[in-house]
Amino acid sequence: MRTLKLALLGFGNAGRAFAKILENNKQEIIDKMGYEIIVTGITTGSRGGLYSPAGIDLKRAWTELEEQGRFNQAHKDYSDMTSMEIVEKGDYDVIVEMTPLDIFTGQPAADHLRKAMERGKHAVTANKGPIAWYYDELKKLSEEKHVQFYYETTVMDGTPIFNLKDETLKFCKVTEINGILNTTTNYVLEELAKGKNYDEVIAEGKRIGFVEADPSMDIEGWDAAAKITALLNVLMDAGITPKDVDRTGIQNITIAQIREAESQGKVIKLLCRGSLENGRVMASVKPELVEKGGLMSVIEGTSSVVQITTDLMGKLTIIEHDPDLIQTGYGIFSDVLRIVRNFV
Amino acid sequence: MRTLKLALLGFGNAGRAFAKILENNKQEIIDKMGYEIIVTGITTGSRGGLYSPAGIDLKRAWTELEEQGRFNQAHKDYSDMTSMEIVEKGDYDVIVEMTPLDIFTGQPAADHLRKAMERGKHAVTANKGPIAWYYDELKKLSEEKHVQFYYETTVMDGTPIFNLKDETLKFCKVTEINGILNTTTNYVLEELAKGKNYDEVIAEGKRIGFVEADPSMDIEGWDAAAKITALLNVLMDAGITPKDVDRTGIQNITIAQIREAESQGKVIKLLCRGSLENGRVMASVKPELVEKGGLMSVIEGTSSVVQITTDLMGKLTIIEHDPDLIQTGYGIFSDVLRIVRNFV
Repeated sequence: MRTLKLALLGFGNAGRAFAKILENNKQEIIDKMGYEIIVTGITTGSRGGLYSPAGIDLKRAWTELEEQGRFNQAHKDYSDMTSMEIVEKGDYDVIVEMTPLDIFTGQPAADHLRKAMERGKHAVTANKGPIAWYYDELKKLSEEKHVQFYYETTVMDGTPIFNLKDETLKFCKVTEINGILNTTTNYVLEELAKGKNYDEVIAEGKRIGFVEADPSMDIEGWDAAAKITALLNVLMDAGITPKDVDRTGIQNITIAQIREAESQGKVIKLLCRGSLENGRVMASVKPELVEKGGLMSVIEGTSSVVQITTDLMGKLTIIEHDPDLIQTGYGIFSDVLRIVRNFV
Repeated sequence: MRTLKLALLGFGNAGRAFAKILENNKQEIIDKMGYEIIVTGITTGSRGGLYSPAGIDLKRAWTELEEQGRFNQAHKDYSDMTSMEIVEKGDYDVIVEMTPLDIFTGQPAADHLRKAMERGKHAVTANKGPIAWYYDELKKLSEEKHVQFYYETTVMDGTPIFNLKDETLKFCKVTEINGILNTTTNYVLEELAKGKNYDEVIAEGKRIGFVEADPSMDIEGWDAAAKITALLNVLMDAGITPKDVDRTGIQNITIAQIREAESQGKVIKLLCRGSLENGRVMASVKPELVEKGGLMSVIEGTSSVVQITTDLMGKLTIIEHDPDLIQTGYGIFSDVLRIVRNFV
C-alpha cells in the first residue's frame, strides 16, 4: 500500500465536506486503489492550522472547527504555518487550494499553486481565480513539471465540464460556450420579478444565504465573468482574463424592464457567452432577454447551465440543479481521486 | 510507432462518418499518441465486405459504397466473410460493432462482442441491443479477459453519459435516472399537437427521415425501453432487460388528450424513468404530463435529455441537441481513442 499526502489550504464548508467524504471512503480507496490518502497540513485564515507529516486526525479537525470555531492550540500538531509556508516547506504530494477568492487578481491562490507545482507537487484548486487569471501559465508549468492539475469544482462544483476536454472533446473544436453561471443574480432577478424591491431582495437573500455579505461581485457580473473566462481558457484556449470580458451587471435592471420583458413572453437572465470571432475568443456577461419556455428560462434559483457547441459533437448542455456544499466537497474528492487513478 | 487494427461490423451512415473522422485525424493520432490506427476488415449486410490484414484503403471503401452502393468485387481485398467469420478468425485488436439493432434479442451483436472478447480483443459497440440485453455478462467478460469495452454512442450518440461512471460518479451512488430518450415519439407528439392526424404525421416523418420505415419500435416505446435499460444497467447496476420495463407507447394518445393537457398548461412526453425501490431498480417508459415551461417540456424535436440523481453529486442534466450522423461517428471515434489512451 502506498500513501498520498494532501495539504489543504482553507478549511471552510467545502473543505470540511471534502474531509468527511475522504474519511468515509478511506478504506474503499485502500481496497480498490491501493492508496492510503492522508492529510498532513491544514491552514485557515484566522482559525489556526494543523501540521503533521504522519497525518492529521481529520475527524478531530472538523469537529474542533465546528464545535469550537478554531483548532485547539494545545494539540501537538497545532501549527501557525501560513498557507505559503506549508506550500514551500510542507511534506505533501498534492496541494488542495481552497482559500478565499480574490476575483480581481486570482491571488494568493495562483501563487500557492505555482510554488507547489514548481516543487513537483500535484495540484487541485477549488478556487476559480487562478483558472481565470493564470490558466495558461499554470497549465504549462504542470506539463513541464509532469504533475497533475485539476480544477473541476471552480465553475460548477464538480459537475463534469472541464474533464470533457480530456475525454469526449479531445479531437473536437469548441466553437461557442453559453451559460447562466452566477446563481445570485439568477435568484435576484427572479425575486425582483415577483414585485419586491432591490434592497428587500438583497436583504432576504443574505438571510437565507443566497446572497453574499458583499453582493457586488455577483451583482456587477464579476463572478460570472471569472467563470466564463475559466471555461473559455480551458475549453477554447482563449488566453483571456476577466478584464477582457465585455461585462454588464444587473444593478441597473429595473422592475419596469422586467415587466416589459414579461409582456413580450420573455425573461431577463444574466447570460455568459463566448465565441470565436475572426480567430479570437470574444466573451461577454450581460443581462439578456430569453424566451419564456426556452431552455435558458427554466434555469432557476441556484441551478446553473453550460452549453457547449462543437464542430464534431454538436451542441450539448449540462445543468447543475440546486447544488449543496456536499457537492463541492465531492467534486474536490473526485479531482484528488483522478490523480490517484492516473498512478495506478 | 505501434499499430492498432480495427474490424468494422456494419458500414452504414455512422460507420462511414466514423471512417472519415478516423482518416482525417490519422496523422494527429500518430503524432500525439504514437499509434497508427488501421482498419483490417469491414462487413455489411448486403453490400459485400473488405478484408486485408495490412489495412484497407478507407477512402476507397466509403467512396465505393456512396457512389456504387456496394464494394467492388474486382479488388483483391474484397471479401465474402460474414461478420461472425471476421470476429472469429480476423486479424484485429478492436471489434467495432455497428450492425443493425434487433431490439428484442440484442443479437447477433451481443455474440459478436462476446466472441471477440473471448479472443482477447477490445470492443466498441454503437448497437444498444447488447447493453440492454447482455451488459452484465459482457462487462464481466471484459474484466476477466482484461480487455476494454466501450459503448458511449448507444444512448446519446457519444454525448458523455456512460463515461461519467468511471470519472465523476465513481464514488457516488446513482439513485434515479429520468429522461426523454426517443426522438421519434418526441417529434410525433409535437406534430400531433399541431392538429395533424397520426397517419399524416408518420408519413411526413418518414419523408424527412425522423420516422423509420417500421415506426412500431419507436411508437410502442421499445427503443426508449432499450435505452433506459442500458442506462440503468450501467449506471445503477440494475441487471434488467427491456422486458422488465413497465412500458406504454404513444400509439393510443389522442388529439383530445393533447388538447386536455394543453388546457392544464402541460404537454405529453414519452418519459423514461428508473429508480431504486426497496433495493431493486424499477423502470418505466410512459407518456406523461409535464409542466409547460419546465425542463422536460423544452426538449423538442430530435433532442434528448438524461437526468441523473446521485447521493453526493446532486442532480445533473445532460441534453443532446439535434444530433446529426457525424456525431455518432465522432462518438465511436472517441470510444476507440479511449482504448488507445489507456495504452499510452
